[in-house]
Amino acid sequence: MTTKTIRTGVIGATGYTGAELLRLLVGHPNAALHAVTSRTDAGVSVTDRFPWLGGKTDLKYVQPDSDLVRECDVVFFATPNGTAMTQAPDLVRGGIRVVDLSADFRLRDPLEWKQWYGLQHAAEDLLPEAVYGLPELYRDQIRDARLVANPGCYPTAVILGFMPLLAARLVDTVSLIADAKSGVSGAGRKAELGILFAEMGESFKAYGAPGHRHLPEIRQILGDLAGRPVGLTFVPHLVPMVRGIHATLYAELTAPADLQSIFEAAYVNEPFVDVLPSGAHPETRTVRGSNMCRIAVHRPGQGSRAVILSVIDNLVKGAAGQALQNMNLMFGLPETLGLDGIAVVP
Amino acid sequence: MTTKTIRTGVIGATGYTGAELLRLLVGHPNAALHAVTSRTDAGVSVTDRFPWLGGKTDLKYVQPDSDLVRECDVVFFATPNGTAMTQAPDLVRGGIRVVDLSADFRLRDPLEWKQWYGLQHAAEDLLPEAVYGLPELYRDQIRDARLVANPGCYPTAVILGFMPLLAARLVDTVSLIADAKSGVSGAGRKAELGILFAEMGESFKAYGAPGHRHLPEIRQILGDLAGRPVGLTFVPHLVPMVRGIHATLYAELTAPADLQSIFEAAYVNEPFVDVLPSGAHPETRTVRGSNMCRIAVHRPGQGSRAVILSVIDNLVKGAAGQALQNMNLMFGLPETLGLDGIAVVP
Amino acid sequence: MTTKTIRTGVIGATGYTGAELLRLLVGHPNAALHAVTSRTDAGVSVTDRFPWLGGKTDLKYVQPDSDLVRECDVVFFATPNGTAMTQAPDLVRGGIRVVDLSADFRLRDPLEWKQWYGLQHAAEDLLPEAVYGLPELYRDQIRDARLVANPGCYPTAVILGFMPLLAARLVDTVSLIADAKSGVSGAGRKAELGILFAEMGESFKAYGAPGHRHLPEIRQILGDLAGRPVGLTFVPHLVPMVRGIHATLYAELTAPADLQSIFEAAYVNEPFVDVLPSGAHPETRTVRGSNMCRIAVHRPGQGSRAVILSVIDNLVKGAAGQALQNMNLMFGLPETLGLDGIAVVP
Amino acid sequence: MTTKTIRTGVIGATGYTGAELLRLLVGHPNAALHAVTSRTDAGVSVTDRFPWLGGKTDLKYVQPDSDLVRECDVVFFATPNGTAMTQAPDLVRGGIRVVDLSADFRLRDPLEWKQWYGLQHAAEDLLPEAVYGLPELYRDQIRDARLVANPGCYPTAVILGFMPLLAARLVDTVSLIADAKSGVSGAGRKAELGILFAEMGESFKAYGAPGHRHLPEIRQILGDLAGRPVGLTFVPHLVPMVRGIHATLYAELTAPADLQSIFEAAYVNEPFVDVLPSGAHPETRTVRGSNMCRIAVHRPGQGSRAVILSVIDNLVKGAAGQALQNMNLMFGLPETLGLDGIAVVP
Repeated sequence: MTTKTIRTGVIGATGYTGAELLRLLVGHPNAALHAVTSRTDAGVSVTDRFPWLGGKTDLKYVQPDSDLVRECDVVFFATPNGTAMTQAPDLVRGGIRVVDLSADFRLRDPLEWKQWYGLQHAAEDLLPEAVYGLPELYRDQIRDARLVANPGCYPTAVILGFMPLLAARLVDTVSLIADAKSGVSGAGRKAELGILFAEMGESFKAYGAPGHRHLPEIRQILGDLAGRPVGLTFVPHLVPMVRGIHATLYAELTAPADLQSIFEAAYVNEPFVDVLPSGAHPETRTVRGSNMCRIAVHRPGQGSRAVILSVIDNLVKGAAGQALQNMNLMFGLPETLGLDGIAVVP
Repeated sequence: MTTKTIRTGVIGATGYTGAELLRLLVGHPNAALHAVTSRTDAGVSVTDRFPWLGGKTDLKYVQPDSDLVRECDVVFFATPNGTAMTQAPDLVRGGIRVVDLSADFRLRDPLEWKQWYGLQHAAEDLLPEAVYGLPELYRDQIRDARLVANPGCYPTAVILGFMPLLAARLVDTVSLIADAKSGVSGAGRKAELGILFAEMGESFKAYGAPGHRHLPEIRQILGDLAGRPVGLTFVPHLVPMVRGIHATLYAELTAPADLQSIFEAAYVNEPFVDVLPSGAHPETRTVRGSNMCRIAVHRPGQGSRAVILSVIDNLVKGAAGQALQNMNLMFGLPETLGLDGIAVVP
Repeated sequence: MTTKTIRTGVIGATGYTGAELLRLLVGHPNAALHAVTSRTDAGVSVTDRFPWLGGKTDLKYVQPDSDLVRECDVVFFATPNGTAMTQAPDLVRGGIRVVDLSADFRLRDPLEWKQWYGLQHAAEDLLPEAVYGLPELYRDQIRDARLVANPGCYPTAVILGFMPLLAARLVDTVSLIADAKSGVSGAGRKAELGILFAEMGESFKAYGAPGHRHLPEIRQILGDLAGRPVGLTFVPHLVPMVRGIHATLYAELTAPADLQSIFEAAYVNEPFVDVLPSGAHPETRTVRGSNMCRIAVHRPGQGSRAVILSVIDNLVKGAAGQALQNMNLMFGLPETLGLDGIAVVP
Repeated sequence: MTTKTIRTGVIGATGYTGAELLRLLVGHPNAALHAVTSRTDAGVSVTDRFPWLGGKTDLKYVQPDSDLVRECDVVFFATPNGTAMTQAPDLVRGGIRVVDLSADFRLRDPLEWKQWYGLQHAAEDLLPEAVYGLPELYRDQIRDARLVANPGCYPTAVILGFMPLLAARLVDTVSLIADAKSGVSGAGRKAELGILFAEMGESFKAYGAPGHRHLPEIRQILGDLAGRPVGLTFVPHLVPMVRGIHATLYAELTAPADLQSIFEAAYVNEPFVDVLPSGAHPETRTVRGSNMCRIAVHRPGQGSRAVILSVIDNLVKGAAGQALQNMNLMFGLPETLGLDGIAVVP
């Protein structure tokens, strides 16, 4: 374990994911916030934008091409999709390790990326070496990665829920269903009518039923687990709350099994996955502000269908917390360092 | 069409369903509120309990055995499960028509009722004649019914969503899934810790995954539609909002079909079912306070799985509004009378 | 009472106020929606924008200069501030009666208007004849008005709360305080970061403490009531809910008085003001979707300070409902016509 | 500074205040949770009740008279009012320091206590030595106190807001107003109809306008500050959110003053009071989960009235966080130890 302080940079730290990264980084014992960038807010104090960080940092936002960024040991991209693929390559080649919280390096196939994100990929050559930053699945590769593609929020909750079943070859892999529900912060900090309080409050809806960008990402990783392509129906929904994701997963069992034991065994050593006792139902609030994923597994009526309930905080385990978990691995630190915050309940 | 005013009684009008019944009844042009009962609030003015009804009624609560109840043309039970089965039989035999908004007469099999509700059924002899009060399916029987079992809130949203697919024999009937989400008013007006604002606010959870009382009810009716027993996985969830149900339904298609056309045709003449244009996602707020059910049908990736999104207001189409719709049918009135309120949005 | 149908037009019907006007107008027995305008949505069906109006209107949006507008008997402006003052004069002079729901004609002094709204007033000559559309205060003038300035939402709640005290000359008029709280729909339907769900949810804040545009409007009318200029401190706040305004008013009593009786007497004949029993606290939900104002009056510790609690639905009595109330007066209709909807609770 | 670990006990740790104490105590570097009591849950694991504490404690609840309690260095009472006054005296006399989070020792006058709480006080003899646990005002006395009366949530927000004005003798002390708004967790974890989600959601109301128990507590401390009895109107409200208090305070200035400078000077050395820049409006979310109080001061229209906006998290600075701050003082620890958590925003 290194005791050297890690110099960290955050590109695009004005959105919710960026703000959460800052909250976690200023509390991390071995990390120092070194560069925080924003094209629009360059020159502004970070604490002017996020007053609740008062006393924790005196940095001002700089431009993304600032020398301060090049002095970092690790740089996090909390930018909209399409930015990291143009800026990360130089950093990576310059020896700076990168954790990209956007979608730019999550899909291995640049054509699939173009299909879902509408842009030609600008750094295809880096795609093969990008490691999908889900420690529960790719821990060893993350340790040595130069470039980590931090998972999406929905994919984190969904993959962790399906993982034990697929790894144990217990379920039909062509009829998987993920019915996922997210708090509105998952839609980002953008001036859009559709996510106004008066539009989202006291209402619930699905969106993206015909196809959501997280679908190919989930399918890719579940395919790794299953050892072959999987069939997945993924329907996301918006919940009138700020934080939290709840994934309700359905799979057809192909063999008898003690699901509770399988899940407990799969995650017994995982610091951030908590398998609840049999019969329980996790609440999103029990992970609010924490890096935990809480999972319960059910077999209604003792039938052939497994129902898995998986909750995370979309901004922590679904974004910034997982990014720090990856940083800890990349720098040989204890994986839980700076991530032991307890959920704020109620 | 009769123009005679219908004398109506509401048994147990202190909960959310009862209050909503009162709101709709005082605005119904052909109904007069004649008796409103409450064991605990007998003698109290209804408007003391529900001040927003001020000016619309001057009734006081009476005991359930009041003569006023026996003077009614129709009596609604908005009581906890287990009450109507003891009180309704006398009324029915006395020539008073009954709409029971509780679960007492929804299951045809008294043993199944006992299994899910924990009580010996007290009026087994009435079960055969009780009509399930879903007008879109049993309209003709409702017209002549002495006793209508008003559907549960989840069942209404789920059955209306599956109905066209099952009626057209288009889907596999053993692998149906209903992932349903409800506002907290669906849990009733009871002094319980679990449904406090500070427990439910800013959080989301599933409940009843091992088995919920609405499961046998839904299965029974879907079985009618399919012409044989169906396999259904039903997982309800609680949304941090007051009103609204959103059912997300999954079914495996067994034959190619133009789903949009099938749904539009199925409901073309239904005043309270609105099939949205292709690609749409209904929001629960668009039915708030109204008796509408809004449905959208998707086939993600043009695959073999149908995804149906169905929303209702749990207190209106899911309870009190449907009860009035049934009353209109039972008394030969236009089905939409007193039910033309537009959703209050935002 | 005329039985002729009133042809109505709504300018700028894409915001919350406009949508609420449409909801109320399609349910009004003597009004026909004749023209609905939107610069951006011309050609689009109203029900494409607001699906919950399906079946109630088949109008398409037209441009504001459409001939349809000129065929109306009354035109409502639900436009941003600064629009009605340029478009209303032609209509008024053409014999069309106008109810302006924006702020353009609320302040009598064009200099004060310029100071608060940042624009030179474009129709100063019409200001003297514009009638402030608060029926409880200016009912007779409204009947004959060509141009009604519909009050702001905060002013409606605040003025109705202070009115009996000022009219009875019971309070010190230089130390009035209005601490007002509004649901987020009051901020309008605008793509702005500050009113996103993820910004407003689970949080509460004041805004505009140094001075809010509704301050001069309230001061002007309270001055009318007091017969001299008043001193008022007005602090608005945003509540994490969609609809509703709660004004908490503080005034120093200058003479002993039975406040409850004074309030009851003041509003005994008002159909839309409900004075609650002594000791009560009105909830905003009890007016949701309705045109009622509910008021309670307290004298804590039997001291010299009066505390008045006043609630309205900001989109109904605070905007669209009051506009219809004004229309009813202007056209000799019963004042409550089309406005008898009961609050949707819970 | 002692480096010895403090053995802590929590009496009545099943409510929101108790749960928050546990969250903070398990994260405190110098405190060990030694005894956690609950009459109803004795024998149950704390993590069964609060699963989000999993891995942080393996304690089980014990009865309040357990020996474990007597082994503590400090005991916190998170009990309903009326309990600590019967159980704390023995502990205090036994040399165990006590921080009472209930109201039992907040009022110096037992008659006033009886008047507001309806019980004869059971430990009048301890009242004179109980120290009001507001460190910003009574820091020195707290260090040596055997018994600390932890302030109420409203009083903390209100007193910190008025303190600089009263200390500087700048305002009229007979016409103070505190218009306070609280999240629903402030009402406690009790099975009561009035605080159900479906009652509180999407609604706002005042309560206790005729007189709230926190009034005499605030008056007592403001009187200390003013050097004479003060006149205060206090009106609390419930906001549809879980956590947070926002106090809007009104005071009449009796002398010209630079309010911003006075507030900044008053709190320059306070670690948990943040005076915002001129013109700002604090949001309750910016203190969620943190021990901060954020304050802004306004003088609308440069008039004679000061408006102070003060926000805290009712469960942290308004309860459990302040209790730990007091413990830190009592045991000679750095005042901020274990209390440096950053607000969880959004």
